[in-house]
Amino acid sequence: MISVQEALKLVESSASVSSSENTDLENSLGKVLREKIHADRDYPPFHRATMDGFALKSEGFSEDRVYSYTRELHAGESFQLESGEEAIRIMTGAPVPEGFDLVIKIEDSEDLGISNGKKQVRFRTEKSGSFSNIAIQGEDLKRNQEILKEGTLISASVLSLLSSLGKYSVQTSKLPRVRVISTGNEIVGPGETPKPWQIRDSNSYSIRSLLQKYGIVPISVTRAGDDPTILEKAVQEGLDSDLLILSGGVSMGNLDLVPKILETSGVKEIFHKVRIKPGKPIWFGKKKEQAVFGLPGNPFSVQVCFRIFVEAYLRKFLGHSSEKPICLPFAGERKKKNKLTEFFPVSYETKGQTFLSEKKFNGSGDIRAGIFSDGLGVQFSETENLKEGDLLEFYPWT
Amino acid sequence: MISVQEALKLVESSASVSSSENTDLENSLGKVLREKIHADRDYPPFHRATMDGFALKSEGFSEDRVYSYTRELHAGESFQLESGEEAIRIMTGAPVPEGFDLVIKIEDSEDLGISNGKKQVRFRTEKSGSFSNIAIQGEDLKRNQEILKEGTLISASVLSLLSSLGKYSVQTSKLPRVRVISTGNEIVGPGETPKPWQIRDSNSYSIRSLLQKYGIVPISVTRAGDDPTILEKAVQEGLDSDLLILSGGVSMGNLDLVPKILETSGVKEIFHKVRIKPGKPIWFGKKKEQAVFGLPGNPFSVQVCFRIFVEAYLRKFLGHSSEKPICLPFAGERKKKNKLTEFFPVSYETKGQTFLSEKKFNGSGDIRAGIFSDGLGVQFSETENLKEGDLLEFYPWT
Repeated sequence: MISVQEALKLVESSASVSSSENTDLENSLGKVLREKIHADRDYPPFHRATMDGFALKSEGFSEDRVYSYTRELHAGESFQLESGEEAIRIMTGAPVPEGFDLVIKIEDSEDLGISNGKKQVRFRTEKSGSFSNIAIQGEDLKRNQEILKEGTLISASVLSLLSSLGKYSVQTSKLPRVRVISTGNEIVGPGETPKPWQIRDSNSYSIRSLLQKYGIVPISVTRAGDDPTILEKAVQEGLDSDLLILSGGVSMGNLDLVPKILETSGVKEIFHKVRIKPGKPIWFGKKKEQAVFGLPGNPFSVQVCFRIFVEAYLRKFLGHSSEKPICLPFAGERKKKNKLTEFFPVSYETKGQTFLSEKKFNGSGDIRAGIFSDGLGVQFSETENLKEGDLLEFYPWT
Repeated sequence: MISVQEALKLVESSASVSSSENTDLENSLGKVLREKIHADRDYPPFHRATMDGFALKSEGFSEDRVYSYTRELHAGESFQLESGEEAIRIMTGAPVPEGFDLVIKIEDSEDLGISNGKKQVRFRTEKSGSFSNIAIQGEDLKRNQEILKEGTLISASVLSLLSSLGKYSVQTSKLPRVRVISTGNEIVGPGETPKPWQIRDSNSYSIRSLLQKYGIVPISVTRAGDDPTILEKAVQEGLDSDLLILSGGVSMGNLDLVPKILETSGVKEIFHKVRIKPGKPIWFGKKKEQAVFGLPGNPFSVQVCFRIFVEAYLRKFLGHSSEKPICLPFAGERKKKNKLTEFFPVSYETKGQTFLSEKKFNGSGDIRAGIFSDGLGVQFSETENLKEGDLLEFYPWT
């Protein structure tokens, strides 16, 4: 049996990066950018007033000097200075006209009324240097400067930036075509009433929800029971995909039903069983470029194995970076019950600093496991009992 | 000018909770549950074997005793014991037949071959008590027990639970009908080439993306410039919604264009200006049940004001709880530059424990602000300079 770290390495090294496709900016949130992005012009594109006030020349400025002005300039407008024009009224976001290099904010001005048809003003200010209260053209970004790399996840901030740059369509990673199969004769679907010894299918629902974080809608979701002939047919159809995710049928009591059928169908095992709890019987393999996960059938095992292994695969497949580790202190105590690496639901608990507190549940079959949690904490196989304040590796759900 | 805390209280107390509607479970991820959920039967629904092994009677068990068995029971099957049947082979997930109360795992059994057509087995085990390796019917949940409250956010784990309970459609909060208007004569849309002193509209893109976290697709997104007549028409149309979000036109330099038009249109101001940076000129008001946010036009101000104020409104509107505070230590130093509460982009940085590190950018007009950040850190108006290890309130983007 391999460790979780070894399994993660195998999963990540098995993923080949997806091809890319053109995507409208509106539909790109949460996708992975697959092109470098450069500035299309300088940013700011012009010397921009950052305050409402007056634009003038810093040279010869004095607090004693009385300036006269007639015109005002708003954002979205532009004009050239006229000969002899000493100052203009200027609004935030407007371009400072060529010839001026100083903006003094309105609060620092003193209105002196009108003389000869021109408004008169004087200033008391600490900021009278060249380019005070002006964002200089190109000071944020120079034209053609690289600003985003391939592999960037398109967040709302990144999307806002792309729209500023006029990139209304971008190359992003193609999402994988995913198929989902749940196995188990004890599992019944929505149309059926479970007999006392049967349970309802929840794994197809949770896998579908967990995929939604990546914007992936599975192309099929099938319940196949444990009949080898039906299951084999479902697997063969399931292999027409980039990623096939099965639940159930991978543990000893199931006589390794799923691994055997996958092998028959030409999927090569990369690993079977990892030293984790829950999820120990997890199976992973590939057939050419297709990846196949056989997740243990327990609802909470599915959620854990998806979060840890399937997500690691998806990030690599989509050309995104590996996940950054997050470590927060633990609130409470937790005994080490076995030699496996344990994943358990935790939620934020803020007492001064934010701790992670265990959301207890009643054993691996408890259908409530995971609810009200913010993510998973990890107690590694080699660690001792956890006590208050011990650092815990944390996998948030979102 | 009010504080951020006062503004948040006003925003939250102004929100009336949305009505509810029936939603198919498949479409309920991320929505807010609006009914109590009870267990439809006991969970586990039967005494369930939690190990692969043998089921027998704990009474009279001895490690010396040889048991004979003929039958095996898989998950999804059920049978009654026959008279004289001493043990059965049982698989994880199968119902323990009435009359037996102990499961011994396969690893603790010793195969003794066949005698009189019956398989013979003996056990060496530390676990031979009543209900060992059995999840007892109803031990997780009793029939009719309440398990989820109104206001629960439907996560993947909650959705998995609901499917286990056979709740294939649930009452959830109706999403608000949202309209978005960006103002500003300097703003040009996708079809246009910006003149040197113009910039492209990014705020409609970021507001649209930020709404997507709540599954909300705005019913309209309009660019209205600064012409009072056009803007007034857009606002009047925009008021046919639950929530109207404007960007730009709320600061002094814009001559309070948006507040004036909102007032004319019958929207009552609840506050204008909050002691925050960025976002100081934010405007908030209501017309009957409709809420209106006037966000400052700066791209990063829009992102901050949405995350802090609009999200607080949406959570209340959707019947969800207020956000739980998260506080993590700060990596680095940060000077307090003014008397406002400052929000700035931060990202996780793990050195032993996870710290928040500031993602610097070049002033409030920098279109790169926010990219590569995991959320916003807060330096409250009353705090001093931040130093390494100081606790920082944190608003993650996701």
